[in-house]
Amino acid sequence: MTEPPHRITLLTDFGTADGYVAAMRGVIAARAPGVPVDDASHDIAHGDVVSGAAALARYCDIYPAGTVHVVVIDPGVGSARRAIAVLAQGRFGIGPDNGVLEPLLARADTVHEVNDEALFRHPVSATFHGRDIFAPVAAYLAAGGLIEAVGPRIGDAIRLEWPAPERDGDRITGEVVHVDRFGNLITNISGNEIADAAEVVIAERRIGNVRRAYADAEPGQLLALIGSSGVIEIAVRQGSASAVLGLGRGAVVEVVG
Amino acid sequence: MTEPPHRITLLTDFGTADGYVAAMRGVIAARAPGVPVDDASHDIAHGDVVSGAAALARYCDIYPAGTVHVVVIDPGVGSARRAIAVLAQGRFGIGPDNGVLEPLLARADTVHEVNDEALFRHPVSATFHGRDIFAPVAAYLAAGGLIEAVGPRIGDAIRLEWPAPERDGDRITGEVVHVDRFGNLITNISGNEIADAAEVVIAERRIGNVRRAYADAEPGQLLALIGSSGVIEIAVRQGSASAVLGLGRGAVVEVVG
Amino acid sequence: MTEPPHRITLLTDFGTADGYVAAMRGVIAARAPGVPVDDASHDIAHGDVVSGAAALARYCDIYPAGTVHVVVIDPGVGSARRAIAVLAQGRFGIGPDNGVLEPLLARADTVHEVNDEALFRHPVSATFHGRDIFAPVAAYLAAGGLIEAVGPRIGDAIRLEWPAPERDGDRITGEVVHVDRFGNLITNISGNEIADAAEVVIAERRIGNVRRAYADAEPGQLLALIGSSGVIEIAVRQGSASAVLGLGRGAVVEVVG
Repeated sequence: MTEPPHRITLLTDFGTADGYVAAMRGVIAARAPGVPVDDASHDIAHGDVVSGAAALARYCDIYPAGTVHVVVIDPGVGSARRAIAVLAQGRFGIGPDNGVLEPLLARADTVHEVNDEALFRHPVSATFHGRDIFAPVAAYLAAGGLIEAVGPRIGDAIRLEWPAPERDGDRITGEVVHVDRFGNLITNISGNEIADAAEVVIAERRIGNVRRAYADAEPGQLLALIGSSGVIEIAVRQGSASAVLGLGRGAVVEVVG
Repeated sequence: MTEPPHRITLLTDFGTADGYVAAMRGVIAARAPGVPVDDASHDIAHGDVVSGAAALARYCDIYPAGTVHVVVIDPGVGSARRAIAVLAQGRFGIGPDNGVLEPLLARADTVHEVNDEALFRHPVSATFHGRDIFAPVAAYLAAGGLIEAVGPRIGDAIRLEWPAPERDGDRITGEVVHVDRFGNLITNISGNEIADAAEVVIAERRIGNVRRAYADAEPGQLLALIGSSGVIEIAVRQGSASAVLGLGRGAVVEVVG
Repeated sequence: MTEPPHRITLLTDFGTADGYVAAMRGVIAARAPGVPVDDASHDIAHGDVVSGAAALARYCDIYPAGTVHVVVIDPGVGSARRAIAVLAQGRFGIGPDNGVLEPLLARADTVHEVNDEALFRHPVSATFHGRDIFAPVAAYLAAGGLIEAVGPRIGDAIRLEWPAPERDGDRITGEVVHVDRFGNLITNISGNEIADAAEVVIAERRIGNVRRAYADAEPGQLLALIGSSGVIEIAVRQGSASAVLGLGRGAVVEVVG
């Protein structure tokens, strides 16, 4: 099992102004008072499971073993959708069974349904499982509880299907999977597969070769580079590629040569 | 008195970009370095005391005894309005005497004016009591200080008058008291008082019976349900009831039957 | 050297929704697990070094000695710009060498280039030094590491030139250097230099004498006062001076008499 110090991270689409996040923090403060809680984000777009999974992917493995990653992007709350807990290389994930935990599910050692009501906060509302199920079970795990105790092991958790790029000779065709706050268009094409001489094309516009850093372009100029997650992204130095090109998630990107 | 671990929560309308919240955190870090500080929210609308109190109500009792809830929504800063500290069932509240601490005042064991300048940060500005009064006094209380030491006990703290629903036979007439980030219209009508067959009407539009969860409606469909705070709310599954109906705080809601 | 408890603050223009901040927090959690991390803000405008420095100025000295202030507003990431670490009266600063650390540089005891790659997270990306350089070096310093170990001492860190007010007889001419969330126009004119009878003029509009607090004006009325940082600001009680006047950063302000 994992070693202390345990820690909890929170990722939601709740915003903060309604007090819902603080309600989750209060549950954890009451049940696991010595456990640090990090806000990953509460600004994921409402119900956007794909963006939630993309954000989680950027940090889940960087945190040390023993961390419990809580993710509540949960448009199906109160329906028959299950709550699940995942253990992957020492990091826990807990959230709805809708694919948002994909970065942990992809390398899970074990996945359990969360259904032991003795661990929940009562009464359990039908609309706020973040407070009544996910926070208290996260506190239980962060306090050293066993994942086996939260409910039965399952083998059919819902997986998120990331779009995969296609290779045809010296041409790779992928797409924009995320637009970040800076307007960078982040693709699903790994930088490892790209030759130095390869040219990047988006929406029939030729961007040129892959550069090293934003600063390798002039201010306002489009460029392609290998971003911090190791994939090709299209950027504008000191600007927004999304705004300049009028493109977002799903836009086709080609790398040729 | 309350037991460790003490903890402080912060609720303001400051945003974060100006560094005002960090100034408050710095004061606490210097005066009570071992006390965890949770951001409840800094996104309350400017000067919106009612929304601040509504947010506080969602978490103040969930935190354990010993927690100090700091609330700085303070349009009267620098005027003659008093600063107050409240103790309610082991939780402290500290903030301006303008009603924003209502969820704690409603069950207060004791309320004190905060006027012992020896506890303040000096010089005390006329525009930023969050940094100079509320944060240092919160640090004092979280470090185990006595509420009796912050100033004299008072019996006339300003109370927030929540609108109350009216019952006439089998008809309850209430109103929308809060619109949350998801556009859910949250009313002042308790779910406990509602018969299963009762029908909810908002702005002369019949919403139907009270459902259990958002998922009990089709995507885009209006529904009424008992929300996570135990009151009736009007929602749109995977949408915004506020946007669909063009309604907000103050809209009349009736429950019939 | 400084004493425990060490603490880290984070100031960026990243927003939170992309998971970049959580990646930085994960690095710190792994390398300095007992060190508290405070979010100062992640809402600084994209690449706005001046606003970042203005925010940092509001809290950097309030935190106790031993605090490590991380600032990542870094439009030149991946270029030849250096990373630097500053020690000023017991507080550390770490960030890009672009002036954003000015509030600490102005009173620095020592400034070092950060270039000891043994302290970095590898591989070091060209686009995300927050995760790969600033967070791990901050963790090193917060865990008690020596600033001398991060790289060679330098004497030519880039300084931010704040605009200075000019005095001509009984007239001081300054400018708006920041607009805060409330629309207050914050100037570079110190309140210490102002006679009680002095009149404030902005964009040829006479605002009157300096008042003590927002509450000294009627709702909706313009006023000048000495803000929480000790400088003249122009405000509208329960409103936005920036919106009412249509003015922002750079607007000329005069104090006469």
